[in-house]
Amino acid sequence: MSLIVQKFGGSSVRDKERLYRAAQRAVDTYQKGNQVVVVVSAQGNTTDSLIKKAQEIGDTPPGREMDVLLSTGEQISMALMAMAISGLGCPAISLTGWQAGIKTCETHQNARIRHIDTTRIREELAKGNIVVVAGFQGIDEQENITTLGRGGSDSTAVALAEALLADRCQIFTDVEGIYTADPQVVEEAVKLTSISYDEMLKLASMGAKVLHDRSVAMARRGNVVLEVLSSITESEGTVVQENSNSAAPHLQGVTADRTVVRYCIKGLNRESGGLYTFIEELAQAGIRPDLLGQNEEGEIFFTAAHSKREEINRILKKRRLHIKEEDIWAKITAVGQQLTAFPKLKKEFFEVLHEAEIPWEDSWMEEDRFSVLVLRERANDAVHALHQVVLRHHLK
Amino acid sequence: MSLIVQKFGGSSVRDKERLYRAAQRAVDTYQKGNQVVVVVSAQGNTTDSLIKKAQEIGDTPPGREMDVLLSTGEQISMALMAMAISGLGCPAISLTGWQAGIKTCETHQNARIRHIDTTRIREELAKGNIVVVAGFQGIDEQENITTLGRGGSDSTAVALAEALLADRCQIFTDVEGIYTADPQVVEEAVKLTSISYDEMLKLASMGAKVLHDRSVAMARRGNVVLEVLSSITESEGTVVQENSNSAAPHLQGVTADRTVVRYCIKGLNRESGGLYTFIEELAQAGIRPDLLGQNEEGEIFFTAAHSKREEINRILKKRRLHIKEEDIWAKITAVGQQLTAFPKLKKEFFEVLHEAEIPWEDSWMEEDRFSVLVLRERANDAVHALHQVVLRHHLK
Repeated sequence: MSLIVQKFGGSSVRDKERLYRAAQRAVDTYQKGNQVVVVVSAQGNTTDSLIKKAQEIGDTPPGREMDVLLSTGEQISMALMAMAISGLGCPAISLTGWQAGIKTCETHQNARIRHIDTTRIREELAKGNIVVVAGFQGIDEQENITTLGRGGSDSTAVALAEALLADRCQIFTDVEGIYTADPQVVEEAVKLTSISYDEMLKLASMGAKVLHDRSVAMARRGNVVLEVLSSITESEGTVVQENSNSAAPHLQGVTADRTVVRYCIKGLNRESGGLYTFIEELAQAGIRPDLLGQNEEGEIFFTAAHSKREEINRILKKRRLHIKEEDIWAKITAVGQQLTAFPKLKKEFFEVLHEAEIPWEDSWMEEDRFSVLVLRERANDAVHALHQVVLRHHLK
Repeated sequence: MSLIVQKFGGSSVRDKERLYRAAQRAVDTYQKGNQVVVVVSAQGNTTDSLIKKAQEIGDTPPGREMDVLLSTGEQISMALMAMAISGLGCPAISLTGWQAGIKTCETHQNARIRHIDTTRIREELAKGNIVVVAGFQGIDEQENITTLGRGGSDSTAVALAEALLADRCQIFTDVEGIYTADPQVVEEAVKLTSISYDEMLKLASMGAKVLHDRSVAMARRGNVVLEVLSSITESEGTVVQENSNSAAPHLQGVTADRTVVRYCIKGLNRESGGLYTFIEELAQAGIRPDLLGQNEEGEIFFTAAHSKREEINRILKKRRLHIKEEDIWAKITAVGQQLTAFPKLKKEFFEVLHEAEIPWEDSWMEEDRFSVLVLRERANDAVHALHQVVLRHHLK
């Protein structure tokens, strides 16, 4: 008997039809003799409408109360999911974050799971129940309700899989798995059978939206076998796990980050140590500059996420540095491993960009990725172009 | 320093304007130097829309999961209320039923509060917070979420007031207090300054909807001083407490129950003991027959709540009794105390009914009430008529 954790996101439970389809998945898995824990997000746009309710009351609601409010979204989902599973004739019980023993730190709206006391879940599994757990939520040491922030339900599923020593953690989504490129952009994109944690993490941090980097990092740390698959079709998904079949050098996929901002700074000297302390200060604020370089006029340039814009400006202002912001770029990244084993890889990338008449700005090559900055309106073209090279060096 | 529990029902928190008005009430009370615990119901028709969600999933959702679902309604309210109070500059914290230590029996959808562990509430009050508690919910011994059923938020408020030894439990409603009759029916109705638990209980059990009989009974048991007042106007309400100022015989008010069903049964003999065992069986099913009598043909007749219809029919069918149901009546009841001290009271009631040309069927007189059955379409007229007698014998 295996123990499977299945996570269904907001769109997979948004209405009766979707809910029953998800419930049927859980029941099928259960009837094959597995123990099943289902993790659910809030339905469709429930979270947005709860946020709207709070904004009506005031501009700066206390974070603690926002968590109390938002956590109801998953509680509604989990009750309906347990009802649907019961409706299909299977015993089911729903548990909130606190009932499921999910203990977090006390950072409201962006809490991290510290520990899961699995007693209650194990009891309910032993009774033969499918256990439905609310994603995205927990309680802190003082028994206050917390929410996990971005990608929270994925984190719940992975943390539960780790704590329960589950055989697999299945993440059901709108897509059928991880592809060599976004299939909505590149028709020839190929679905991957499996991908390593490191490669998935790199794809996620470079713009791929299927999985959040935090949950991939958690899965790697806990050695949880993740599977990304469709909540609609029955086809096999992509397994994310420790490297096994793909020891040879290869490319895995290409992704685009359309929200990067490029900064050019005057007056920072690479040699004087000013650059070093500047980067350190960015790091302390949780900002990792990418595609860092210096041009002939001595200007330092780098890219960072659009969401960090205010913070970066605050730091630059404090240092009285002159800055130029460019919000017109997209960062296109091809991910793989042992890329330096391909001596002419960088040249191949530039050739396909050249053939497609796509001008590029900065670029970066290292062992596990190649990134290049192109104008945002050419992002899809650049993904297309780089994808040709990816397919050339992709291990089937 | 006093401790005041304030309960706001669904219509008192249904939108931003109402929420802020209620929050302002709590803040005013706090700023006068009191400790304040606020109990909230779900907003407006939230509960109905949650029930609708469940019904979409299936016809017979498990009671446990209904409680998980419905309890989110109060959790949303309490978060918004805490936000509104914070928005008014007052420290506030919201607590769910389980966080507030409300332990119930395990009867889902109709649980009773067994015990309240007030540790957390007292801690938060000691920190200077206004504590906002979700009404209508608790947890059972196994930490499952339960809901309290009909009038649940009133019960929460009264139970909290009792457990916290509060000085007063204020129930904010759409009306300004308890009146000698429903002011929407009788213009001349007079607001009562105070009323005894017993009289309030009698009014509530005979159809008055301002307070639920269960919470009045709880208040009597715990000797909690209840106050019913308007969430909209600032005028004084009605205090429900142990008899004090009203030892003399008097009438307090008149109410109507428009949902009674009258049953006529053939074949039950009052003398043979069949009637006795029949009434006992009804009592075991939670049914209290009222206006019980026997006519000249030996038929037994009585009234009971419409909601008990199926159950009564089941019992009568089992006993193979022939039955006639009449769903055309309203029971009008005048409530008071020591009524037999007024020798001609019954006659006075019949006279006003006669003057208003209202025919009546069965009637009943005892120490604390007079009830009479009239056709439902004449209910308001009968309330008007009996109210004249009430005012005549009402203690100012």
